[in-house]
Parts: sequence; C-alpha cells; structure tokens
Amino acid sequence: MASFPPWHNSAWMKAARREPTDYTPVWLMRQAGRYQPEYRALREKVGFLGLCKNPELSARVMLQAVDQLGVDAAIVFSDLLLILEPMGLELTFDDGAGPIIQNPIRRPADVDRLGELDKLDPLDYCMETVRLTRSGLDDRLPLLGFAGAPFTLASYAVEGGASRDHRRTKRLMLNDPVAWDALMSRLARAVARYLNGQLAAGAQAVQLFDSWAGCLSPEDYRRFVLPHTQAVIRAIEPGAPVVSFATGNPALLPLLAEAGGDVIGVDWRIGLDDAWRLVGPDRAVQGNLDPVVLLSNPSEIRRRVRTVLDQAAGRAGHIFNLGHGVLPQTPVENAIALVKTVHELSRR
Amino acid sequence: MASFPPWHNSAWMKAARREPTDYTPVWLMRQAGRYQPEYRALREKVGFLGLCKNPELSARVMLQAVDQLGVDAAIVFSDLLLILEPMGLELTFDDGAGPIIQNPIRRPADVDRLGELDKLDPLDYCMETVRLTRSGLDDRLPLLGFAGAPFTLASYAVEGGASRDHRRTKRLMLNDPVAWDALMSRLARAVARYLNGQLAAGAQAVQLFDSWAGCLSPEDYRRFVLPHTQAVIRAIEPGAPVVSFATGNPALLPLLAEAGGDVIGVDWRIGLDDAWRLVGPDRAVQGNLDPVVLLSNPSEIRRRVRTVLDQAAGRAGHIFNLGHGVLPQTPVENAIALVKTVHELSRR
Repeated sequence: MASFPPWHNSAWMKAARREPTDYTPVWLMRQAGRYQPEYRALREKVGFLGLCKNPELSARVMLQAVDQLGVDAAIVFSDLLLILEPMGLELTFDDGAGPIIQNPIRRPADVDRLGELDKLDPLDYCMETVRLTRSGLDDRLPLLGFAGAPFTLASYAVEGGASRDHRRTKRLMLNDPVAWDALMSRLARAVARYLNGQLAAGAQAVQLFDSWAGCLSPEDYRRFVLPHTQAVIRAIEPGAPVVSFATGNPALLPLLAEAGGDVIGVDWRIGLDDAWRLVGPDRAVQGNLDPVVLLSNPSEIRRRVRTVLDQAAGRAGHIFNLGHGVLPQTPVENAIALVKTVHELSRR
Repeated sequence: MASFPPWHNSAWMKAARREPTDYTPVWLMRQAGRYQPEYRALREKVGFLGLCKNPELSARVMLQAVDQLGVDAAIVFSDLLLILEPMGLELTFDDGAGPIIQNPIRRPADVDRLGELDKLDPLDYCMETVRLTRSGLDDRLPLLGFAGAPFTLASYAVEGGASRDHRRTKRLMLNDPVAWDALMSRLARAVARYLNGQLAAGAQAVQLFDSWAGCLSPEDYRRFVLPHTQAVIRAIEPGAPVVSFATGNPALLPLLAEAGGDVIGVDWRIGLDDAWRLVGPDRAVQGNLDPVVLLSNPSEIRRRVRTVLDQAAGRAGHIFNLGHGVLPQTPVENAIALVKTVHELSRR
C-alpha cells in the first residue's frame, strides 16, 4: 500500500475530493494582506512587486497568516499579473490605482507582441516561494498554487489595468475573434505551464481566478472563454485538485462547471445551496461569505457563517471561504473569529 | 366608451401590459448622452447639473435623441441623484470622477440629517422637464419618468459617490439595521412622491434604477432592500406601468419580481429566456443587449439582436433595450442601426 504524505488526508484535500470531513475546512482569499498590521509594516519597507519577487518574505507573510488565523490551507503569496512580465508586458503597481500595464495590447496586431511563455525560468522566484512556503508549513496543511484565468489576464493585458466595462477587451473579442483566440490560447498555455510548475515545486492543488469573468454574458463566456479555461484545466497534472473561481455573475456557474475543475468557487451573489444546484453534485464548492460581513460584528458574523453552513447542509465537498478577497479594512480579530466559528459550528 | 390618449396603444405601452404588438418596441437607457456629437457640443457650454436644471435644454436633448434614433419611448432627461439635494445632500458632478456627495452619511446618527422630501417644489425643474418633453413628443410615444431605487440612492448617500465594494453602505446595514431602515424608508417615501410627481406632470410610466443592487446577496436583498423597493412600487399611482431594473446579479431576478413592477429590467449577464423564467410569465421584461456590442460592427450587432429576439421568442411583453446605459464611445450610427434592426427583425 502506498503511503500518502500527511496533507493527503487534510480536511481541505478531503473536501476537494468530496470525502466526508470532521469539520468544514476554511481558508480566506487574500488571507495575507493589508488588513494585517504586520503586513502593512513590512510593506512600508518593500514595494508590492519587490515583496512578490522576494521568496523569503513572500513565504513568511503567508506562513504568518496561516498561523495567526488557524486556516486549513495556505496559498502561494503572489500576484495574478506576474505571469505577464516574461510574456513581454511591463507591470507597475501603484498602491492607490492598482496594477498598470504600461504597454497594453490595444490592436489585433499587438497580440503578436505577447510572447509565448516557453520556459519558467523568469518566474523562478515564484517557484522558490512555493518551495519555501511548503517547507515552512505544517505538513498536515496543503499549499495551493494559483494563476489568473485566461479571460482575466486578457482583460488586464488589453485594458492596461482594472476596468469597469471591459469595453476594449470585449471589442477585440467581438471584432477580431481570430486575434482573440490567438491571445487566449497563448495565455492558456502559459497559465497551464505556470500552474504545473507550481505543482512540481511543491503545491498540492491549484486555483484559477477569473476575477473579471462576471462582466460576460453566458453566450460570450461559452463562445470566447470556456474553451480556453477548459484547455488550462485539462492540461493540469492529474491528481492535483483544481479550484475554478469566477466572481460577479452567478448565471455563469453552470458554464464554469462545464469548463472543468474539482472545486467551483462561488461568490456571495447567490445562495450556496442554489449555487451547488447549478454546479452539480459531482463537484465540490468553495465559498461564499460576503467579505463585507467581516466588517460587522461577532454576532452577525456568527449568524452569517451559520447560514452558509446551513446551505451546504453538511454535504461532503464544501470548503468555506469568502466570496472574494479579505478587505483591507477588516479587523484581524474578525477574520480569526470567522475561522474559529466555521470550525466550531461545522464540527460533526 | 372612454377614449384613450394616442400613446395608450403604442407598442411600448402594449408590451408593458403584455399585449401583442406588431413589432418589439425598443429604447435605450442613456439614449441622450455623451455618445452624440450634439450632446457633447452642448455640454461644452453647460455643466451636467446646469443641464439637468434647465428644462428647455433637458427636453431638447431627449427629443433630439428620440428623433435621431427612432425609438419607441422617451425618458425624462435627468440624474438619479438630484432627489438627494432637497433632502440635504450636497452634490457635485466632476466629469472624470462621476458624482460626489460632499456630506455623505457616514454614521447612524447622520441618517437624521437626511430630511424628509415633503414637497416637490425644489424639484420643479424636473416636473417642468416632464411637461416640456411631453408637449414636444409625438403623442404616439410614451414618456417615462424615473428615479433611483432606495438601495442605489442609499449607497451613493453613504459612500459619497460610486463604490466598488459598497462596504460603508453594507456595514451600516449590518451593524445598525434600525438606522438603515430609517434611511431606506425615508428614501422610499421620497422616491414614491417624486415618481408620482413625474406622472402627474405628464409621464406615462416610470422606471426604478437599482444600479448597485447587484453587489448584494439574495439574503441581504430580501432582508434589507426588498421591503423598501416594494413600498415604492405599491405607492405608485395605479394605471402607470412600473419598470423595475437592477443590474449586476441575475440571482436577484426572482426577488426583484417579488418586489413588484409590471416590467422587470434585465442586464446581459443572463440569457433573456432564463431571465424571463426566473421573473415569471406574469411580467413583461426589458433588455438585454450588452452595451459593448454597440462598439462592434453591423453584422455582429445584427447577430446579437437576433439572439435576444430569439430568446424572447415572440412572446408578448418584451421591450428591447440594452442591459445598461449607452457607452460614451458608441458610434451614433450603430445605435441607429440597432433600433432599425430590432424593428426589422421583430416585425410580425
């Protein structure tokens, strides 16, 4: 009989495989971040990009957060957009305005400017973060790698930053489907290679973030996005659970499930019970508390945790999380209380 | 037998009552606006607030747009936030940043600062815009009055402008439900009075815009918003169709329908057929083309109009519209082509 590493039977990994667990595992997107005084203090000394490219510091902020919160999984500390640098885009992070791409893809011809990510060397710092985080982490906890999904990366690349209406991206998609397909295919190959690299470096599972997909109609998602997300998921090394997360449009959930993944990430815009119905019983689900609830008070947090757990109804395959990243204004004690409350109220 | 005014049997009014029409009526949210060269030229001479408070100019920009586009309805040219001025909030419009409220409601005690809108005199300019638009409009076309729904107004009032996460608003809602209820009730009474004033001044129907409701979970919408939207709709003078529009979260559609209204406005995040199923057969629906489609090309526009019409399947009670306002970057000829195409492809 093969012997499994200790994390194999962790609550998170079992839930991702839809096996019963003693309690509902929980972690928080952006669990290491601005809401922590330690993180803010560090960031006064080092810029965001500098932090992401420093594996020792990146590993340390995540290990600190895991320790402080008592969560059931760690995730590589990094940023969605770093993959775009070795592909030829120039990134800058301005604390107020968010990420800016200095040389965005504006015309169909610009797509050729985006290079193929044919080797991972330029992203070695991320692989080193994976190794250091894994080696510092309790071996009963899994470490998640992650990447932006092709649509979200394409939107950043085309808009040059965050966007409200994603109009440049959609215009390229509608007016030049051939260039769009080339762009998305190149991104999908890069993302798959990047995620497999993180798995090889020591991650146990991976999460795809499609943060902007919610701006799409189901018709456009199916036609212009689904095949590429599917290509990424199919290319992931077998055996590692894949979490596929999109935010902003519950009507996309059936299509997200169709694109693949073992665990479907759900935001708060839909009840978890309705979400699971749309996703289907053959998937685990992750979510889905509104991050703003962590700005309220302990009794409201407790009430809302109970609602989410009630909607999950004790079915195997629920990983508790927020429906989006922890807000910078979150009191640390509320995040800690959330994790405790999930463990307490879900214990079977 | 009573004689009806000419607009009574217009395609728009019949569709709002779910009566069969010869073709699908169409109008566009923000059909008078920055995408038109005439509008931009006018706005070089007058600020946005100045324009809204000038009934002659406001009527003229709408009549011009109706004439140019050949749409089946006009809407009062105005802004969602003007109702907040006589209630004690100081508005400024900065073309880049959007509306700013100088004295937002930040603490529960601030709610008392928001005055009751007990008479409409300070909004006379809007009523005069209604009268002038009505008298200049072809009497076979209906004129819609409009207002922001209580949640969207509350969010502007609390955040002090547009917001990405609406965290101050939700924090007030979760931490002080009593203050929240007072705020929303006051806004609901004001909105009902305002809409009834527009009907008395000559509008034939009204639309509620809940532009920010999509940030809410169904649970929060039901608990904190639905009763107030319902109160507005119940207070509208009988006989005038009410369009209830929210954007950003298809999972709210059943609750939007539950709150009332004759026509439910739908954005592009869900197919119109699925949306109509969620809303129920006893309502008309309005929507739902992605405004970005108007930045593409005539053949794509035609294809997408056909998809929406196919999803409506010729059922009585469909009013064609975008799922959100016309984007400033829209070529005027594409907006004109859209209206023509809807009329042509839907003619029975």
